[in-house]
Formats: sequence, structure tokens, C-alpha cells
Amino acid sequence: MLKTPTIVLNVKTYEEATGNNALEIAILMDKIANETGASMAISVQSTDITLCAQKIKIPVWAEHIDPIKPGSHTGWTLPEAVKAAGAIGTLINHSEHRLILADVDTCITRAKELKLDQIVCSNNVSTSKAIAAFSPDFVAVEPPELIGGDISVTTADPGIVSKSVDAVKAVDKSVKVLCGAGVKNGKDVEKAIELGADGVLLASGIVKASDKENVIRDLASGL
Amino acid sequence: MLKTPTIVLNVKTYEEATGNNALEIAILMDKIANETGASMAISVQSTDITLCAQKIKIPVWAEHIDPIKPGSHTGWTLPEAVKAAGAIGTLINHSEHRLILADVDTCITRAKELKLDQIVCSNNVSTSKAIAAFSPDFVAVEPPELIGGDISVTTADPGIVSKSVDAVKAVDKSVKVLCGAGVKNGKDVEKAIELGADGVLLASGIVKASDKENVIRDLASGL
Amino acid sequence: MLKTPTIVLNVKTYEEATGNNALEIAILMDKIANETGASMAISVQSTDITLCAQKIKIPVWAEHIDPIKPGSHTGWTLPEAVKAAGAIGTLINHSEHRLILADVDTCITRAKELKLDQIVCSNNVSTSKAIAAFSPDFVAVEPPELIGGDISVTTADPGIVSKSVDAVKAVDKSVKVLCGAGVKNGKDVEKAIELGADGVLLASGIVKASDKENVIRDLASGL
Amino acid sequence: MLKTPTIVLNVKTYEEATGNNALEIAILMDKIANETGASMAISVQSTDITLCAQKIKIPVWAEHIDPIKPGSHTGWTLPEAVKAAGAIGTLINHSEHRLILADVDTCITRAKELKLDQIVCSNNVSTSKAIAAFSPDFVAVEPPELIGGDISVTTADPGIVSKSVDAVKAVDKSVKVLCGAGVKNGKDVEKAIELGADGVLLASGIVKASDKENVIRDLASGL
Repeated sequence: MLKTPTIVLNVKTYEEATGNNALEIAILMDKIANETGASMAISVQSTDITLCAQKIKIPVWAEHIDPIKPGSHTGWTLPEAVKAAGAIGTLINHSEHRLILADVDTCITRAKELKLDQIVCSNNVSTSKAIAAFSPDFVAVEPPELIGGDISVTTADPGIVSKSVDAVKAVDKSVKVLCGAGVKNGKDVEKAIELGADGVLLASGIVKASDKENVIRDLASGL
Repeated sequence: MLKTPTIVLNVKTYEEATGNNALEIAILMDKIANETGASMAISVQSTDITLCAQKIKIPVWAEHIDPIKPGSHTGWTLPEAVKAAGAIGTLINHSEHRLILADVDTCITRAKELKLDQIVCSNNVSTSKAIAAFSPDFVAVEPPELIGGDISVTTADPGIVSKSVDAVKAVDKSVKVLCGAGVKNGKDVEKAIELGADGVLLASGIVKASDKENVIRDLASGL
Repeated sequence: MLKTPTIVLNVKTYEEATGNNALEIAILMDKIANETGASMAISVQSTDITLCAQKIKIPVWAEHIDPIKPGSHTGWTLPEAVKAAGAIGTLINHSEHRLILADVDTCITRAKELKLDQIVCSNNVSTSKAIAAFSPDFVAVEPPELIGGDISVTTADPGIVSKSVDAVKAVDKSVKVLCGAGVKNGKDVEKAIELGADGVLLASGIVKASDKENVIRDLASGL
Repeated sequence: MLKTPTIVLNVKTYEEATGNNALEIAILMDKIANETGASMAISVQSTDITLCAQKIKIPVWAEHIDPIKPGSHTGWTLPEAVKAAGAIGTLINHSEHRLILADVDTCITRAKELKLDQIVCSNNVSTSKAIAAFSPDFVAVEPPELIGGDISVTTADPGIVSKSVDAVKAVDKSVKVLCGAGVKNGKDVEKAIELGADGVLLASGIVKASDKENVIRDLASGL
């Protein structure tokens, strides 16, 4: 399980994070994590898990799994396959890849069976609370309207973070909470932790930055 | 583009074809293709494309792409990503992973932009004809009720193959036709070609066989 | 809000419950409810809400709403439209019509805005608990494998009912619980109530019965 | 079958066309069709089919059907149900309600079995051609980026109309073609017919107009 507080990068399907570009970012995060002792993980496209997992020591995560078992499921993402490729955890129900309620349950169950850690994404306080009922490792709350934007959730809507923490803990104290959307620097990370979160989930803040090393170091300083 | 007639294996998400198991099958097909001169390709899970493409010479294909461009699409299958991982083509609209009509169009367009070959799956004659309107490289007709079964489509429903060939060619002569479902041996391949197909698409016939080498050699003998 | 304990019939899209057939069943339930004082409601296809609501006094429900507001949503089910047609409540997330987690939230919110009562369906205990986080009027737990079968959930899996009641009440005491799948007679209804449920949700038990009047009277006797 | 050239109104799920508002528009179109002899039809929400079909003589259409047969399909739109409610035809695959390719085929087949006329929507020339392979009564081409806008497809992109007509007729001469998106007045209708279309499909042009009667009369003058 990820040591907390933590910074989790989701590289999405950005061109700047496909194939060798993903590997470069992974190597950079790995170097900084090693130097600073910061807890960091990187979530990459299915195609790039093996590439990254062979070269870095920080945890490589999948961006998604489908609610399936081995069998006839052409082109879907098998939990066993991301595990075999080297992932140690997986995002579930990202706001860009939402799942049917019963499938959120099945994906969490399948991940637990395979000892894949889980970060399950929510869009508001009541959804965070609902997800807590399935006892995943992490709930990551991200208001969809702030994703990819310039203002951090911790500034734009701090209440959604602290209320999600309260709602999740009321259902299951063992579930940790991340927050995301617009997170860009060390102060945003610090604020997230002040609000009760166990870390942040971010994407464009790193992937789209011109000086990625500087941004990652700054984020790490906020832990 | 695949030399025809051809045999295309879709390994789906079978346990027997995940991670190193996929690689073993890929190496076996590569060896037999090399020895016999048969045109063969293998379509593997996204997670396994790099693993296989680094080790074999026959074409590695993706099982699916999503109708997206680089950007914010967490966990979806980016055409650029399967290309970067080493795939030279992709299945589209497999009966286990059906797409919205407009997305079939978009996926074919995106694959052509990236010079990824396309095999677009259909479930009957009129759907084969509809797909031909998009001028993909191949249409692969597979009656869903025969997929994974013991009787080859070429025996159970030869008319669907010959009529799909006629319907496709009436719309666009340059589109090639494969057939699949229940294909297991060299005679099935021979019959497919007699019916006007340019080859076969199969899955369990190889993946679930106890003596895979024998089965692949027998299939190759039918070309 | 439905008086509890209650019997809610979901007529699905059965031929025996389409158009005038739906109206006949609605009139029959209305008559028996009136005679016996039993709390009963009928959930019908969108096309049949007006037809039934004009003729009966027991509540008419919709089988589904989509997570939309008035606007450009051709062919989707607008909550305002089922309300205008005469529905006083709606099923949400039936196992045959499952919704994305965030859309379960949106549908419940939209229904509350319009004062439409809500029965939100779940497939197991943890999903029942998750749904309770949204505080709908009712959670209806139905194990998918028992739906349409011959054995009542109250006999085949009584634990799923009592555990769902406990899990739901632990999250929000005001949420009521129904159970369904295989419910056919008054004893099943009695047992459901003994297990802590506030009533039953059923479909084929009435719709497919040759003597519907007898079955409805027997069910009502179990309240 | 609709007499051509024709004007088909799709009222979507606009507030101005829900319940009694839909009925008012239907009565207005009916009156003008009767007075002018123009061929017109109105496509309304499932909930409003009965309401409208009982009161008007011009054809009432459904906005959507699902690819199902009578049975266990809670909350989906059964073709038999829209027929029983009084619809004589149905839109299929509207750009706001797109279907999987194989389901476009199934919906057309189901509609033909029930003698429901079909207007199948496409988003571009190649998709229009693909749909023609299924031989529906009408293909309606509507560029999604122009839907709901101020400029008629006949002005903004006349080529998509004439090329769709050619592509559709090359596959099946008996299939008629409508065009839509931004259509607002009689000149747009005239131009559509000049471009080879058999009529127009429109929505906001009528529904959002302050003087609906004037707009409908103007549109009718273009036939």
C-alpha cells in the first residue's frame, strides 16, 4: 500500500505521456522520490505499464480496470493483465471513465482479490461517501468542473475535501482520501493535507508543465 | 498490410494468453510462420503489445482502440499508444466490444491517419455491408452465436461468408473479408478461402488447445 | 410517499403488460388495493404512464429516469416528462437498467427536486449500503441471479435482505428497504417483513401469472 | 409511409415540448398541415405519444426505440410499446442517442417487423452510406456541430447533403434522405429539396420559436 501522504500522477492519454514520453516522466518522478523520500506513484496507459515498471522503483499504477475475469472479453482491461504487466494498483471510476455502480463494486472486489491497491474516484461528497461503503484503499474526490483547470480544488472548493474526508470516515475509518483537480504546486499539496486529505491525485499539473522536474520537486516539498 | 490469405489470432483476455503466456503463443506463431511462409498475425491485450512486439517478427495487433485523440481520456485505449507500443494494426468493433456506429467510423479514420491496419468485425451480412462503406482494410464476419463454439462458421453457416463477401465487394471492391467463429483446423481455413474469404480470425481454437503447435501448423496448412 | 409495508409491481416490458394490458393489470391492482386497504403501486413503461394514471388511484411509477434536465436529449427519459404524465415516483438503477455511479446520484437529486419518490435498486449488501449514502426514499435489493426465478429471495438468500436492512440503516435510518426477486405469494411478503424489509418489489410473479387477481390478493394478505 | 417532401419535427426533451406543451405544438402542426396540405410529422417523448396520437391526424413518431423484444427490460423503450401508444414511425440513432452498429441493424429490423417507419440519423456522408446498407425508409444526415445552431446545414455545408444523397442512392435507391441541423425557414427547406433531399428534420427551429405558428407556416411554404 502507498505510504501516505502521497502524490499520485495520472498521465491520462496525453501525447506528452505516451510511450517513451511516459517513461521519461516516470524516471524523473522515480529520481525525485528517491532523492527526497517523498511517497509518489505514477498511473500510466495499459500499453506503457511494462515499459515503466521495468525501469523504475516507485509504484506503477493502471489508469483503469474493467469488471471482468479472464475469458472472452476482447479489448477490455483485465485486472490480471495489468498486474502481470507490473502495476501494483489501479484507478477505478475516474471521471473520464465512469463505471456503473455495480461495476465499481466488482472492480474493487477484483482488485482486492489480486492485491492491487485501489484509488476510486468520486465527483462530490455524497459519491465519496457511497464509495466508502465498498472499503477501497483510497477515495479520490475531484470536482469534474475543476479538472484540468488553473485553480486547485483546495482553493476553489476546500469544503468538498474536508466534507469528503468526514463523510468517508463516517462510513469506514480505514479508507484514505485523496483530492484532485487543478493541483499544481507544493502549497496546494500542503493545503490538501491540512484539509484532512492523505495526498493528491493530479495530471496536467505535471504532464503539461514545461519544467516538469521543478514542478515535481515543488509538489514533493508540500508533503 | 497483411499478406493474404492470412490467419489472425485474437487472444482475447484468456488467462492462457495473458503476460508471458501471450508471449509464448506469439513466439510459437512466429516460428511456424517463419518455417512455413504462412501469413499470420497475433492480436494481444494492450498490456502485452510491447512485450510481444519486441520479440517476434510477425505483425502484432491491438484488440481494440477507442475513438479518441491524445488528451484527457483516462484509461481509454489511445490509437497512438498501441502504435507506439509496436502494434501495426487493430481489431475494431469486435462482437465482445461493440462500438457506436459513428465511433466505428472515427476509429477507422484514426487508424488510417496513423497507418494502423484495420480489421472491423461484423455480426451478419448487412452489418458487413455497412462497414464496407467506411473502406477499412478488412471486414471480419463472425456470427456471435458461433463464437467460441465447436462448429466452424464455414460449416454451420457458409452462406454468411459468401454473402458477406458479395455484399462487401458490391460496396467497395478493395475491402478484404475474413471470417471467424468456431474455426479450428486447416480444413476450416481451406473452406473459408473457397467461400471467397481472404483468411480467418480465430481465438479459442488456438488459445484453448492443449497442443497449440500442432493446431497452428494444421491451420497454416489450409492457406 | 408510499405507505409501508407496500407491494410495488414493476411490469417491465412484458407483452402481457404493454399498452392496454398494462392498464388491465393497473385497474386490477387498484380494485384490490381499494378493497383490502393494502398499500400497492405499479411501475409501468413510459408510454403507458398517462394511460394508467388517468384511470387508477393507486400510485403509478416510472420504471426509469435518465440523469438529465430539459433540453436536447432526444429519446431519453426526462424526469419532468414522467411527472407530467402522472407518475408520482420512479425506479432508479434497476439491474436491467444500471446507471453510472454519478448518475445514480444525479437521478436521485433530480427526482427529489421534482418530488418524485425514488426506489433505487441494488444487487448486493455493499451496493445497498452505497446507495443509502444518497438518502433515497427506498433501496430495493434484488440478487440478479434470482430475478425472474421460482424461488423467492426471502427463501433463497434471507441474509441478503436482513444484512441490507442493517447496512442501509447504519448509513441513514430514514431510508426504507424493499426486497425482490422470485417473490410470488403472501408468505414471501410476510417473510420479507419479518426480515426487516418495508415491502417487496416484484414483476413476473404477477405479470406472468395466469390468475393475476388471485396472486395479487394472496400477496396483499402477506402485508 | 410519410408522403415526401416532408417536414419532421423532433421535439427532444425541451421543457417547451413536454406534456401539454407537446400537445399544443402537435395540434398546431396538425392544423397547418390540414390547411396547407403539407406533409408533416411530429416526433415526441415516449410519455407523450398517447396524448398526441389521440388528438391529431398527422403522424406521431417516437424519438427512439431500443433493440429489444418484449421481456425483462425495465425502463427501456420497447418498439411494441411505442406502436401501441400510437406512433407510426421512429427516429433511430439520433446524434444525441447513438446506438451500437449492430443495434442500429436490430432497431431497423424490429421497426420493419412492426411496420413502424424509420428515420435513421447519421453524422456524415460515410455514415449515411453505411446506414443505407440496412435499407431503412429514411436516412437523416445532421452534422452534430450544426445541431441547435443558427446556420442551416443547407447553407453551412450543402455538400454533406448532396453527397449523402449520392452515397445513399448508390447503395440503395429506395432509401430517402432528409437533412437537418439549423433548419429554420422555408428557404432552408427549399434549398434542402434542391440539394436532392426528400425533406428536413428539425427541432429547436420550431420548439424554441416565440411565434411557432408563423415558423411552421413558413417552413411549409418551402415544400
